[in-house]
Amino acid sequence: MAAPATVGVMKAARSFASDNNASIHPAVLKAIAAANQGHTVGYGDDRWTESAIRRFRQIFGTDCEPFIVFNGTAANCLALKWLTQSYEAVICSEGAHIQTDECGAPERFTGCKLLPLPAPHGKLTVEAVAHAYHGIGDQHHVQPRVISITQATEVGTVYQPEEIGELAEFAHERQMFLHMDGARIANAAVNLGLGLRQISRDLGVDALSFGGTKNGCMGAEAVILFPQKNRHASSSGEKPGHNFLFLRKQGMQLASKMRFISAQFDALLSDNLWRKNAAHANRMAKLLERELRRIPQIQIVYPVEANGVFAKIPRRCIAKIQQRYFFYVWNEEDSIVRWMCSFDTTEQDVKQFVKFVAECMAD
Amino acid sequence: MAAPATVGVMKAARSFASDNNASIHPAVLKAIAAANQGHTVGYGDDRWTESAIRRFRQIFGTDCEPFIVFNGTAANCLALKWLTQSYEAVICSEGAHIQTDECGAPERFTGCKLLPLPAPHGKLTVEAVAHAYHGIGDQHHVQPRVISITQATEVGTVYQPEEIGELAEFAHERQMFLHMDGARIANAAVNLGLGLRQISRDLGVDALSFGGTKNGCMGAEAVILFPQKNRHASSSGEKPGHNFLFLRKQGMQLASKMRFISAQFDALLSDNLWRKNAAHANRMAKLLERELRRIPQIQIVYPVEANGVFAKIPRRCIAKIQQRYFFYVWNEEDSIVRWMCSFDTTEQDVKQFVKFVAECMAD
Amino acid sequence: MAAPATVGVMKAARSFASDNNASIHPAVLKAIAAANQGHTVGYGDDRWTESAIRRFRQIFGTDCEPFIVFNGTAANCLALKWLTQSYEAVICSEGAHIQTDECGAPERFTGCKLLPLPAPHGKLTVEAVAHAYHGIGDQHHVQPRVISITQATEVGTVYQPEEIGELAEFAHERQMFLHMDGARIANAAVNLGLGLRQISRDLGVDALSFGGTKNGCMGAEAVILFPQKNRHASSSGEKPGHNFLFLRKQGMQLASKMRFISAQFDALLSDNLWRKNAAHANRMAKLLERELRRIPQIQIVYPVEANGVFAKIPRRCIAKIQQRYFFYVWNEEDSIVRWMCSFDTTEQDVKQFVKFVAECMAD
Amino acid sequence: MAAPATVGVMKAARSFASDNNASIHPAVLKAIAAANQGHTVGYGDDRWTESAIRRFRQIFGTDCEPFIVFNGTAANCLALKWLTQSYEAVICSEGAHIQTDECGAPERFTGCKLLPLPAPHGKLTVEAVAHAYHGIGDQHHVQPRVISITQATEVGTVYQPEEIGELAEFAHERQMFLHMDGARIANAAVNLGLGLRQISRDLGVDALSFGGTKNGCMGAEAVILFPQKNRHASSSGEKPGHNFLFLRKQGMQLASKMRFISAQFDALLSDNLWRKNAAHANRMAKLLERELRRIPQIQIVYPVEANGVFAKIPRRCIAKIQQRYFFYVWNEEDSIVRWMCSFDTTEQDVKQFVKFVAECMAD
Repeated sequence: MAAPATVGVMKAARSFASDNNASIHPAVLKAIAAANQGHTVGYGDDRWTESAIRRFRQIFGTDCEPFIVFNGTAANCLALKWLTQSYEAVICSEGAHIQTDECGAPERFTGCKLLPLPAPHGKLTVEAVAHAYHGIGDQHHVQPRVISITQATEVGTVYQPEEIGELAEFAHERQMFLHMDGARIANAAVNLGLGLRQISRDLGVDALSFGGTKNGCMGAEAVILFPQKNRHASSSGEKPGHNFLFLRKQGMQLASKMRFISAQFDALLSDNLWRKNAAHANRMAKLLERELRRIPQIQIVYPVEANGVFAKIPRRCIAKIQQRYFFYVWNEEDSIVRWMCSFDTTEQDVKQFVKFVAECMAD
Repeated sequence: MAAPATVGVMKAARSFASDNNASIHPAVLKAIAAANQGHTVGYGDDRWTESAIRRFRQIFGTDCEPFIVFNGTAANCLALKWLTQSYEAVICSEGAHIQTDECGAPERFTGCKLLPLPAPHGKLTVEAVAHAYHGIGDQHHVQPRVISITQATEVGTVYQPEEIGELAEFAHERQMFLHMDGARIANAAVNLGLGLRQISRDLGVDALSFGGTKNGCMGAEAVILFPQKNRHASSSGEKPGHNFLFLRKQGMQLASKMRFISAQFDALLSDNLWRKNAAHANRMAKLLERELRRIPQIQIVYPVEANGVFAKIPRRCIAKIQQRYFFYVWNEEDSIVRWMCSFDTTEQDVKQFVKFVAECMAD
Repeated sequence: MAAPATVGVMKAARSFASDNNASIHPAVLKAIAAANQGHTVGYGDDRWTESAIRRFRQIFGTDCEPFIVFNGTAANCLALKWLTQSYEAVICSEGAHIQTDECGAPERFTGCKLLPLPAPHGKLTVEAVAHAYHGIGDQHHVQPRVISITQATEVGTVYQPEEIGELAEFAHERQMFLHMDGARIANAAVNLGLGLRQISRDLGVDALSFGGTKNGCMGAEAVILFPQKNRHASSSGEKPGHNFLFLRKQGMQLASKMRFISAQFDALLSDNLWRKNAAHANRMAKLLERELRRIPQIQIVYPVEANGVFAKIPRRCIAKIQQRYFFYVWNEEDSIVRWMCSFDTTEQDVKQFVKFVAECMAD
Repeated sequence: MAAPATVGVMKAARSFASDNNASIHPAVLKAIAAANQGHTVGYGDDRWTESAIRRFRQIFGTDCEPFIVFNGTAANCLALKWLTQSYEAVICSEGAHIQTDECGAPERFTGCKLLPLPAPHGKLTVEAVAHAYHGIGDQHHVQPRVISITQATEVGTVYQPEEIGELAEFAHERQMFLHMDGARIANAAVNLGLGLRQISRDLGVDALSFGGTKNGCMGAEAVILFPQKNRHASSSGEKPGHNFLFLRKQGMQLASKMRFISAQFDALLSDNLWRKNAAHANRMAKLLERELRRIPQIQIVYPVEANGVFAKIPRRCIAKIQQRYFFYVWNEEDSIVRWMCSFDTTEQDVKQFVKFVAECMAD
């Protein structure tokens, strides 16, 4: 993604640059304030963390192991590290966040090579993965151990349950693991009309990066580890998450005042706030898509299934729109831009934005 | 530090376990809430981060380079990584946080060996460091490149300016760097009656881990890089902090909604809040010391110069006190415990605590 | 490369599987034996190493810095580590040895991401590299720092001098470095009719992995560092190779009885042995190509410019040939095999082999 | 160890600087030459490697897994990596080779912290280890997982079997492993009058670095992995050495022409050559000790149990002796020097040397 030369404070109240440009949901901020009472033990031995873990287990099963971390890159890297040895490899799409936007942190932290594959609409297929699965047992080659998928994908599409199930099956038959980068898992669940567990653990996901930050939190991500399906792992007889505490600390991801991150999850996972926020963001993206389709110079390039709209627009308009609205050019060569909606995007935001975009086209 | 077997929610409103058990200072929480307006660009291109950086530069000089990170372990590891090559070594005290409490993160992230030295009262001396400085140019040996000191130290003492100056001089004469772990630098500055710059950069510190979390923030730490004094570095002709952005991202320490961390520093560095908070915590520690000295069975083992009191107490009393107040046993063999005061510790907290401690002794 | 299920002792005296299946050249073995006199200081402070370094400097210039290591993977990884920071990236061809045959050692040892590019006939082009050169200064992206080329390439082709010069220019204009994996640099020099320096340093190569093992040594590789051309590096004012000693030791590549590796180079670089060996191997490959072209079912798929022949052959014949001659299938999908010639391959070896191949085809 | 400023070619035929200054034993060199026949498959699929492995298994048991590597640092680092996770720790003596002479390679390659302990006469004791065994389960602390001992030790002493057995028991009771750096294991076996297996595997060693280079090889080391005793490991149900091939390759330690390293072991392990060589070296060290004891100014500081003599000598004599005989000052402060004997040291060498030492004293 290429940012314009001068970035800075938004000119408009709410932009479409990224769901992490959004604010904190009032209920989340309130929960932080409410946790601000007296002293409590640090590093996770507090009742807010206890409560957040309880909520994760209500959703994902009592035998899962949730670990709170600071950001999404860390959630991905720690999950991958937990699933791999340094001489193994992680199969992902060529547009995966772990491949393109984490400055090599996955390689640096795990030692593994990433094997990026072409992925139409951002989705890995069993066919593509099978192609990359070779060199097994050959000491000269990295050994594929994890398939990592992003749900919803980086281009705003959503894996269907059977697509995930097939990848899980492929993985487990070969003693591999399935990792899901769920930075926007809530948006995917809303799109599919299914529960969080139904679209991850129940389909065979072994480790999940669960995102809160893009869905109304101030900064809250988690790694959720599930009892593993593959023979390689289960034979160790250890419960999921065994020793993950040390990986988190050594990975510089242990918060001392953890209660203030946990309280965010506590709020997000209460009263279906995660679902309401994501549903709203998805709805706004559909509205944005509908409105944009009325502009003939604009071509929507991926199915709008989550909270992002990817559009091919006339190159000459990009800078003009960016004068008022900061956003990222997704693909410079093809003049494709990315516009994201958030829990706090309003219908009026969308309409004003599209009106301005249309004006820029018209000039 | 050994924690009691069962830890959990505090039984008393405020404990003396750690300054990171404290709450968020109201002005800091208010600043977070005030930053929660509309959208802003992520990853630090926002006006709160701009303001926090401006404040750091007002304090430490316009040519310093501040970088905001999530926690203290990360601040230390990233600072050390920036100062070293993987085959070099970091000289520190044997009780240094980087040596004893970071689960090997410094070694893991930098590749370097730590060379821990005995340090009476937690302070490195030039004599001790000179002893560890050998094997220079010998390809079999790690090459000492950094002296890392903690100010205030892990045992509640404070380096005098001339002590730091001597270490800096020793380092720079040998093309080494001086790193300061300033998780409690505010407490040290208050004790010395000096400014933050006066006790770090002006004494020759090359890189500073600046702590906010233990002094009233929710979770805010920074690495401050100074133009380097040693010939090795300055010859590169690059400004301090060149490329540090990439180290931070690869180190999984780049916050997407950074404004909410920056706003904390913005508040802490305004109106001398950092100094007021630290001064109060130090004052409470002195009060705690005075009160404890009245109990004949208790022996204060280190000079109380910051916000912590280290006391040798009868072994049989430890569990009794912990039934009401959670705290850490610093040294099991010698039955030494650590009690920390915070910005929010009250005189009444201290008196109630000492009263309870006295009762436990009396039994 | 896929090996047949059962590998083992050669059935034929000399195979075409790999130039590292070859023996030690008699002059090299003699040099090892000649060095076996009395005691000498270890770790490179011996007269054989001194002599090998002198020879390298006669060839590559007195201001180059040669370092002897155990194997080619190490030469590549150490050279790349010396040229990079962990958040940087190495651009290479998708068939590069560092990408496909080193089990992730480059990523593990340097922390860097590799950026593999499609490369017709195994050669990177400026056009391809320019495509991968993006995200510069963007903290989310790895920063391309090295272009790594293999000369001769993994598929037996040879870069023309101007092709290398263009890549070097592209690199140096962007403060990048050019690395050459010269595991078969001798074969390339012979093909081009040029000297070793003319096809590496003089074209802008910053660091060279110099191979001896595949050209008649028992096990001898070296990293040769040249005074760097790009501004980034030269400003440091340090001579090439500064501190490389420590990287080599930390990389587990410092030989204690180094004289016995150095003596191999001493022999290889004397009396043009390196050139004679490579010239012979190249000649045998041309002979092999000529003979194979007479078999209508066989298609030579890459220009034969060094010591390897890559041929598309009927899939059904592969196992049959392997019953007598062990070799690697280069590309299973396309039924392409690799046959390598060595300094010790004889004309009779070639003829017997082709005769047998022809018989296998005929069946 | 401090080397004199100018090192270079030996002035005397055989020195006492190090057993790695020695030559190649004729039988070993002959074996290398004998292996130089025709082509053979690379990377260990050859009959010399097969034979070396068979010999290792005859000695250490058919269920051990031997892996050939280039040097001792690599053997140690790969063995430790195989036994640990990155957040764990290795307990060793403060004079251990892994701590003082490997330029941080163990930390760099494993991520682990080393925990060096004072060790009288170079030997760890259960008491010392017990002291370092703490912080178990505390996420802030590295988790001790390996006790690493050197046999014979770096100061020429030898662990008694019961000393090793106690350390193994201590380790296995705590789900830890015992690693033995056996760079000089042959010298220890000779001293104890026991077999190689009896002093390693049979006492509970889980992984052994087996040294050939210091005992007459040109450059040959191995990692021998044994079926593990501790519950942590055995529950994985995998045979020892599972996946070690990949660690070796990623660790840049896979030799392409492996037959020439394996042939060295093949010779060393034949006809008890390892024992004869070590017995001779030990005998020469005893002779050297006896002769030196006649010089009143010299004090032998450690029991001479293997092939090294450590002596406190007048400081003023060091440089004088080094004018003719290169050697290392072991401890500058205490003026202790190290003199090593080898398989090729002669009685005359010893006598000439001691005569010269005596002359230097007398001046």
